[in-house]
Amino acid sequence: MTLLNEVTARYPEAISFAPGRPYEDWFDVESVHTYLDAYLAHLAKDRGFGPEEVRTTLFQYGRTKGIIHDLVARTLANDEDLHVDPEALVLTVGAQEGMLLALRALIADREDVLLVSAPCYVGVTGAARLLDIAIELVPEGAHGPDPARLAEVAERVRAAGRRPRAFYVVPDFANPSGVSMTVPAREEMLRVAAEQDLLIIEDNPYGFFAHDQVARPTLKSLDRAGRVIYLGSFAKTCFPGARLGYVVADQEVHGPGGRRGLLADELAKIKSMTTVNTPSLSQAVIGGMLVHHDYRLRPANAGTTAFYTRSMSALLAALEDAFPPAERARLAVGWNVPEGGFFLVVRVPFTADEAALERCARDYGVLWTPMHGFHPGGGGERELRLSCSYVPPDAVAEGVRRLAAFVRDAAR
Amino acid sequence: MTLLNEVTARYPEAISFAPGRPYEDWFDVESVHTYLDAYLAHLAKDRGFGPEEVRTTLFQYGRTKGIIHDLVARTLANDEDLHVDPEALVLTVGAQEGMLLALRALIADREDVLLVSAPCYVGVTGAARLLDIAIELVPEGAHGPDPARLAEVAERVRAAGRRPRAFYVVPDFANPSGVSMTVPAREEMLRVAAEQDLLIIEDNPYGFFAHDQVARPTLKSLDRAGRVIYLGSFAKTCFPGARLGYVVADQEVHGPGGRRGLLADELAKIKSMTTVNTPSLSQAVIGGMLVHHDYRLRPANAGTTAFYTRSMSALLAALEDAFPPAERARLAVGWNVPEGGFFLVVRVPFTADEAALERCARDYGVLWTPMHGFHPGGGGERELRLSCSYVPPDAVAEGVRRLAAFVRDAAR
Repeated sequence: MTLLNEVTARYPEAISFAPGRPYEDWFDVESVHTYLDAYLAHLAKDRGFGPEEVRTTLFQYGRTKGIIHDLVARTLANDEDLHVDPEALVLTVGAQEGMLLALRALIADREDVLLVSAPCYVGVTGAARLLDIAIELVPEGAHGPDPARLAEVAERVRAAGRRPRAFYVVPDFANPSGVSMTVPAREEMLRVAAEQDLLIIEDNPYGFFAHDQVARPTLKSLDRAGRVIYLGSFAKTCFPGARLGYVVADQEVHGPGGRRGLLADELAKIKSMTTVNTPSLSQAVIGGMLVHHDYRLRPANAGTTAFYTRSMSALLAALEDAFPPAERARLAVGWNVPEGGFFLVVRVPFTADEAALERCARDYGVLWTPMHGFHPGGGGERELRLSCSYVPPDAVAEGVRRLAAFVRDAAR
Repeated sequence: MTLLNEVTARYPEAISFAPGRPYEDWFDVESVHTYLDAYLAHLAKDRGFGPEEVRTTLFQYGRTKGIIHDLVARTLANDEDLHVDPEALVLTVGAQEGMLLALRALIADREDVLLVSAPCYVGVTGAARLLDIAIELVPEGAHGPDPARLAEVAERVRAAGRRPRAFYVVPDFANPSGVSMTVPAREEMLRVAAEQDLLIIEDNPYGFFAHDQVARPTLKSLDRAGRVIYLGSFAKTCFPGARLGYVVADQEVHGPGGRRGLLADELAKIKSMTTVNTPSLSQAVIGGMLVHHDYRLRPANAGTTAFYTRSMSALLAALEDAFPPAERARLAVGWNVPEGGFFLVVRVPFTADEAALERCARDYGVLWTPMHGFHPGGGGERELRLSCSYVPPDAVAEGVRRLAAFVRDAAR
């Protein structure tokens, strides 16, 4: 991604379908003060903290598992119908730290293997590389990873004398592919996880942004067998600058001397070696945002969701305009139509690598992301990811016109 | 440390010499607003940012190496006479993340070994454990680690067919021992590092808090050969709730294809797999604090330093009172007299483990930290660490009286 960021940085004037950043026109600098004060008032009013306790909470080292676990648990109940013990939550420095902690906690032996959907978000493959964890790929179809393929891969790994330990998946509007799992496939995946003795690491940064505004059930909410570890993020539903995420890890584990505890406490022990605790400042501001929105981020994001829905519709309409059906077939150009989220994938008739991106940025003034970087086992060489999240609405059509011109020239 | 925190949490009314937390009476909740505004004003005024750029800086994903690198570099020049390229800085989620990044960047092969001073801060041994890095111990003397012992250990490691790669050390007022290196020993240690081809990871959380208010030269400021990676922290000089630290990694490295870069950029690549970037909120508030104090934290901490100096003096005086010389000899009780910082070590004539701590907390109402947890190779069983940083000044004498009563009873 470093090279990619360098290319992006060299062309600041280009229309950019590259970053998975949230749109930012609705951010308001003054709101940080408002949210911080809302959290401090909550501590005083709802929890009965005196001024000294409020001060300690904001300024000192805090609880390793976090200080707004109660507020997040309340919000998850409202937004996702997910009812979890606040003690099973670990607030993390972005979902990225959550991935790192979960991988380190779950995968302890050299023969353990992490299964990931392919194409796959680079954050989890990066965390696996950092920890020297072996991965195996479960290819995605049009509706995300197929549970039957997951079972096949798990069995193949076991037949090779290794242990398939966990499977990482983004069921809603995945990054980079944009695809989503159907509800029956979610149920089936939980059945396969039980059958294959797999844990599931469910990552859900985009779940709010469904075009039909209908909430999909998370794997975690369907899970009755304690198979799912859930990674949450406030980067897209609040804002990235807080770098706040969380893990729900309510599995019971047995520690030294037979002591029973929660997997969350194992994650906390590991967190004491990565960042000690998540900044109180970030938790206070996001906590205040949760209080301010009455512990309901989904309705608070209704405008955001409508924006991304319009933006993706505009992007799809512009692609239809730019590539009439006959030309589409002739050039072998195509794309998927996601049900929500930030991303879609365009197939092109040439190698869409960093060199192509550089030419496209320089000569056509438009940016995108090569897909091959999301395929740790190879693949995606003739695909590119477009993001609708960060591009100004009035630039979408022009951006796609420029992209189409580049595709036609590159296909020659 | 988990068990220790549990004991501490069970006795909230006890007088506590246990935590390495900064004293907090001078923290003021309103100051967070002031510092945040100071940073935003700095962006507008000194850097010419428009309102949209200011908003993006605060709310969006940021630069992996951080956004206040320029302000930190300016402050280091003023406070430590350390002149570094801002591009060689990586802002981290506490010094803990800095340790993790540095260890992962420096120690790549199975035969590489990290040398650490013993007793040793648990954060670095924890990070090494997380990454499966082998450590070897360099015992401390009354003035910290002896460079000659460092050379011996490095040679022994090399003779065993492994590579001594780096040495972790806190030259000023170490945690847990409180000891400091002399200036000639610092010079000699740099000579040994060059001779043994070792890098030095210098961690400096307590350097400001010298009783004589005279700044010791950091190893980094004495280093002319690019041997020292410097870890800084704002937890004690600003406040812990921002969880902000940094690494100075100005070594030149050669990347793929012979591209030259800074070690800081290698750390940033690893950081993209741990936390992606350090919260902008934390950087904005600490950045505002640096601006507010005219890029000089040392004078801004003069009152803090005077407080810790008085607190340690009171602690030492109370120990002298509680253990008259004759009894001290009879009981084989003793302690060191640090030149600054938070910590000192008391030798006692019994096993000072968690069980002893529990009895002392329950029956005598005073808390401390067993030293054996800081000795990964064993040792320190009859020693305890006292911290002068968090105990209210009017409780020091009474706390030591209680401790002395416990020591006398436990020695029977």
